Amino acid sequence: MDLSAAERTLFENRRERLKALLVSQGLPALLVSHPANRFYLSGFELHDSQCNESVGWLVVLAKGPDLLFTDARFTDAGLRLWSKDDLCIYGSGKHAVLAEELKKRGVASLGFDPKAVSVFDHEKLREHFELAPAEGLVERLRLVKDAAEVELLRSSCGLNHRIMRALTEELKPGMSEIETAWMIERMFREAGAEGLSFPTIVGVDKNAALPHAIPGETKIERDSLVLVDAGCRLNGYCSDQTRTFWIGREPSDRFHETKRLVIAAQKAAMEVIKPGARMAEAYLAALRVFEDAGVARQFTHSLGHGIGLETHEGPSLSPRSEALFQPGMVLTVEPGLYDAAWGGVRWEYMVVVTDEGCKAL
Amino acid sequence: MDLSAAERTLFENRRERLKALLVSQGLPALLVSHPANRFYLSGFELHDSQCNESVGWLVVLAKGPDLLFTDARFTDAGLRLWSKDDLCIYGSGKHAVLAEELKKRGVASLGFDPKAVSVFDHEKLREHFELAPAEGLVERLRLVKDAAEVELLRSSCGLNHRIMRALTEELKPGMSEIETAWMIERMFREAGAEGLSFPTIVGVDKNAALPHAIPGETKIERDSLVLVDAGCRLNGYCSDQTRTFWIGREPSDRFHETKRLVIAAQKAAMEVIKPGARMAEAYLAALRVFEDAGVARQFTHSLGHGIGLETHEGPSLSPRSEALFQPGMVLTVEPGLYDAAWGGVRWEYMVVVTDEGCKAL
Repeated sequence: MDLSAAERTLFENRRERLKALLVSQGLPALLVSHPANRFYLSGFELHDSQCNESVGWLVVLAKGPDLLFTDARFTDAGLRLWSKDDLCIYGSGKHAVLAEELKKRGVASLGFDPKAVSVFDHEKLREHFELAPAEGLVERLRLVKDAAEVELLRSSCGLNHRIMRALTEELKPGMSEIETAWMIERMFREAGAEGLSFPTIVGVDKNAALPHAIPGETKIERDSLVLVDAGCRLNGYCSDQTRTFWIGREPSDRFHETKRLVIAAQKAAMEVIKPGARMAEAYLAALRVFEDAGVARQFTHSLGHGIGLETHEGPSLSPRSEALFQPGMVLTVEPGLYDAAWGGVRWEYMVVVTDEGCKAL
Repeated sequence: MDLSAAERTLFENRRERLKALLVSQGLPALLVSHPANRFYLSGFELHDSQCNESVGWLVVLAKGPDLLFTDARFTDAGLRLWSKDDLCIYGSGKHAVLAEELKKRGVASLGFDPKAVSVFDHEKLREHFELAPAEGLVERLRLVKDAAEVELLRSSCGLNHRIMRALTEELKPGMSEIETAWMIERMFREAGAEGLSFPTIVGVDKNAALPHAIPGETKIERDSLVLVDAGCRLNGYCSDQTRTFWIGREPSDRFHETKRLVIAAQKAAMEVIKPGARMAEAYLAALRVFEDAGVARQFTHSLGHGIGLETHEGPSLSPRSEALFQPGMVLTVEPGLYDAAWGGVRWEYMVVVTDEGCKAL
């Protein structure tokens, strides 16, 4: 599948923005080794084959055509995206091939992300280059989604909405957490998702209070609380939503009241989110709702996180964040209240920051 | 789910073997940061939540109890495996917590794997420790599987056999590669696998010759060759098998002959695999079969790879490997012949090296 002209332009535009950053920092070239960054800038392979097995590196030059390095398995995939002259196939001597090709183009110094390059690769590369640490340059671009990305996130989140709506019918007493999680995964896949964006959390009753609930053999009872935190990857982009269902007859008063507070906190946070506002303020707005109700101790995690090509990416809605919201950021807003002796309620939207405020996707 | 005493002993025994290695290398402690290595030695979390998001580090001491570092989400999971005194929960200041806990235990220098530690973490750690590169120590232990691992790999591979047998009935003209791949994934999951060990390859006719075939819309025809390379993860352990099916009436002569050669090459390689034999010899034995038939140019990749907690791990059956087979190694043997104008045939077994030779799992 070749790229359309529009897609090609999209990736080129992103690289142009990065080139401007490189020029402003006096970097002649940047090694892009983190897979999501590589894909964001080139369209080449969103995932490595294993965490310790890279399928390729991109080198973006401040001036001149950028280079894509990969191994022979990916020659075909590379040629669909890249000009033959700038696609470099390595065998075992990856670092030497990188050095040779960049030397030909007069590049002797190379920026790299210290968080995305191993000590081993760094040692090998510095035999050939002057290396300059340059942390998070591509992540900085990815913080604000372009229009194409907002649409892709909207589609991914839209599928999540459909699945969550269907669950109001599908969740039944007698189903185990693990069965439920697999049913949800099947629903996502059969609706066209490439996969999950993270392992589905299904927590029944007390299990809903576990911060890292692995679905187990616990079954939904008549009159159970069921927390579902699930998301998919659709056309590369991640979704992430949490709903807490009541299965059975009338919800308990405690469920009603906890859900009411969580949704009120979410609303309060969303009212604060607008361009120029401090991120900590969103967290504090949610916290205030819980403090007023005397349950703040049950709010045990951060309010949300950026989402895009990765489920967890910047920015983080932590109480310590001095960063400011910008239009085009896409984040989760997911307050929750947890009590190990009872259960938990979390409610999670994905929101996009607009010119005036924010909107749930 | 708590560990049984037998499981606990298993992980302890592995750490004991590592401690002996540390003593022999004069290392007081080793930072274990690669997720599969962490799990192999502790039973704690086989996967990180994202490639750039570690869920914890293990520090194995040459003398004294080992330390498990993780964040608050994993406190419960950690306590099921680790004593409270040696489970260390960090917030954002991971490197400082590591330094403080190790200082308490008199550890001032730390081995690390340069391939599994980022430049960023290295910089942070060397503010506190004398760091000593120590590459692949845990991988060296993992090269030879213990009896428990061989049984787990046998089970995982056994499930793969069942699915491959079922495919002789299930593959039908009209099914697309992408539908087929999803059917295979469903079969694995519904039979109890946690997931796939790698994205399933389904290549119809010419697509079977692609080294990195992504299942697409191409449909199986009446009289098609279908290459399926698939594997699962069962109880953490990976399987990996390839079969090439003929769907329709009588297979073509070319398919018959190519399959006959590939299986002959596989047999020739397996006859060479025994303790003390050089790995390159296995590759060369397969190559010789293809050379004698005048098709060696169509044998375009290495013969196989180690498999265990990761789909790809050491050793590699490459033509350049001087390493020797040892009893307990588990490897894939997967010769293939590929012709872009026609298609390809690959046949893959997982074998365990025994005292006298090797046996297909």
